[in-house]
Amino acid sequence: MSSPGVGFDVAEDSAALDLPGVVSAAAALELFHAAALVHDDIMDKSDTRRGRPAAHRRFETLHRESGWTNDATAFGGSAGLLLGDLLLGWSDELFDEGLRALADPAAAAAGRKEFNRMRAEVTVGQYLDIVEENAWRIHPESELLPRAHRVIVYKSAKYSVEAPLAIGAALGGGTSEQSAALREFGLPLGVAYQLRDDLLGVFGDPAVTGKPAGDDLREGKRTVLIALARPLLPGNARSLLDELLGDPELDAQQVEVLQNVLRESGAIDRVERIIAHNVGRAKTAIVDAPLSASSRTQLLQLADTVIRRTA
Amino acid sequence: MSSPGVGFDVAEDSAALDLPGVVSAAAALELFHAAALVHDDIMDKSDTRRGRPAAHRRFETLHRESGWTNDATAFGGSAGLLLGDLLLGWSDELFDEGLRALADPAAAAAGRKEFNRMRAEVTVGQYLDIVEENAWRIHPESELLPRAHRVIVYKSAKYSVEAPLAIGAALGGGTSEQSAALREFGLPLGVAYQLRDDLLGVFGDPAVTGKPAGDDLREGKRTVLIALARPLLPGNARSLLDELLGDPELDAQQVEVLQNVLRESGAIDRVERIIAHNVGRAKTAIVDAPLSASSRTQLLQLADTVIRRTA
Repeated sequence: MSSPGVGFDVAEDSAALDLPGVVSAAAALELFHAAALVHDDIMDKSDTRRGRPAAHRRFETLHRESGWTNDATAFGGSAGLLLGDLLLGWSDELFDEGLRALADPAAAAAGRKEFNRMRAEVTVGQYLDIVEENAWRIHPESELLPRAHRVIVYKSAKYSVEAPLAIGAALGGGTSEQSAALREFGLPLGVAYQLRDDLLGVFGDPAVTGKPAGDDLREGKRTVLIALARPLLPGNARSLLDELLGDPELDAQQVEVLQNVLRESGAIDRVERIIAHNVGRAKTAIVDAPLSASSRTQLLQLADTVIRRTA
Repeated sequence: MSSPGVGFDVAEDSAALDLPGVVSAAAALELFHAAALVHDDIMDKSDTRRGRPAAHRRFETLHRESGWTNDATAFGGSAGLLLGDLLLGWSDELFDEGLRALADPAAAAAGRKEFNRMRAEVTVGQYLDIVEENAWRIHPESELLPRAHRVIVYKSAKYSVEAPLAIGAALGGGTSEQSAALREFGLPLGVAYQLRDDLLGVFGDPAVTGKPAGDDLREGKRTVLIALARPLLPGNARSLLDELLGDPELDAQQVEVLQNVLRESGAIDRVERIIAHNVGRAKTAIVDAPLSASSRTQLLQLADTVIRRTA
């Protein structure tokens, strides 16, 4: 779970924007994202986030360094859970603050509706994600790819790109045509974004991603990459993949073995083609859309960032 | 963590109330409480809630019965965490729905402010609670009682009684005098309520409380009861208490030993006196308050329920 984090140049369009309201709402999305990451890192038992200790590990360290009794790991998990809850509440308060600063009550109501939908959908997407990690073996091979795709639609594509654009459109008082165009742009771009993230989760440089190499392999994420690779693999390589994927104790050599198995499967090329296809769809969606020239330029820049990004 | 759950007879005053709005807001508090309980049971590793399996245990069972791979317990904890997050979001949406049904925007704004405060304070209270469970040994004996008291003020007294009354007063367009009186009633009553809960957590009948006997002892809760008992105990009994309290593997016989140690300390009488004192303070706070006769009667009934309750 991550976010594009592209800085838009809002100055140009700021005359048309209710700026304080939009800035608070955007900051609220960041706080919501922080909450989701804190909870995500607990579920994934991740040690690091953005190159620093994950929140629950910091609480664990606080426990150890304070000479407290009982289990430091359990305390870290509980404290992280509560921190996430606190951040969820604060994101909600800050979003309301943004809505109150808007001049148009209809825009505020529409923005809140999109925010609420995003909040529920990403949570359900996260649930689908952990279900796949645990349940994939009982499903027929032919279902694994559509199931992996459904996960990224909810946990990532809608959440990371489509919903923020829809929220922004609502807050800015966008027309239904503008909102529809932004969704048609956002969903495929969000899919492309997550597919790139999945490749980075397996092959990314830890110095750039801020996560240990092979973290997604240890977590056993049943990504589109994995769903594409499995049927392409000879039986022994597939057994090896199934055996190692999701083992939290994978060492550097085993990570490298898995990287090679996936590389040799030819699945990376397929993922790259799906990324390119989705970015193309996204760009096409806004060619004739009723958007300002500067908005279109920024959206196209965002699309290119998704193709190129290395972290 | 629990709630008084006393059904008020709203019919009598309904003419003065914006009923659909208040009912939605009250239901939102119930949903928020459900979220807090789901997360609480994960942190406390509780097996049961209200006499049925805790939410995370149900997900654990789903995993086991579905023939999935990986760790059923880890899946249960993650799914419970996400369920709690979903419920937090829904409680927020439902509260907004209630606010929108109110005729008075100032009342809606005041109610939202109280709700937000409650949400943050109970989360911080829960954090203080787990800190005490882990950190109590490094604090001097003289600080343990005030620290235990601070925990119940935030995690329980404000949350379970004071805040719901303050929210209700705000939504009903109450005057600042009415709101102040309800707070002066609610805080000590909430303290009394939690002290009764602490006694039930140690001595309660599982058939009535819906929780296994001695659950609070296995969790190692550093309650006011424990803080009062420790200095009253002879050295060997105190060492026994410190050794056993918080051991998740306590068997029935060890629970009984701890119950006897606490009974013989004389601390129960002190807790009962503090309960009576706080209930008295609560009742006094509304004697001359500018409240309707029927409201006063219902509040006094609530106070009596807190004294008497066995679950």
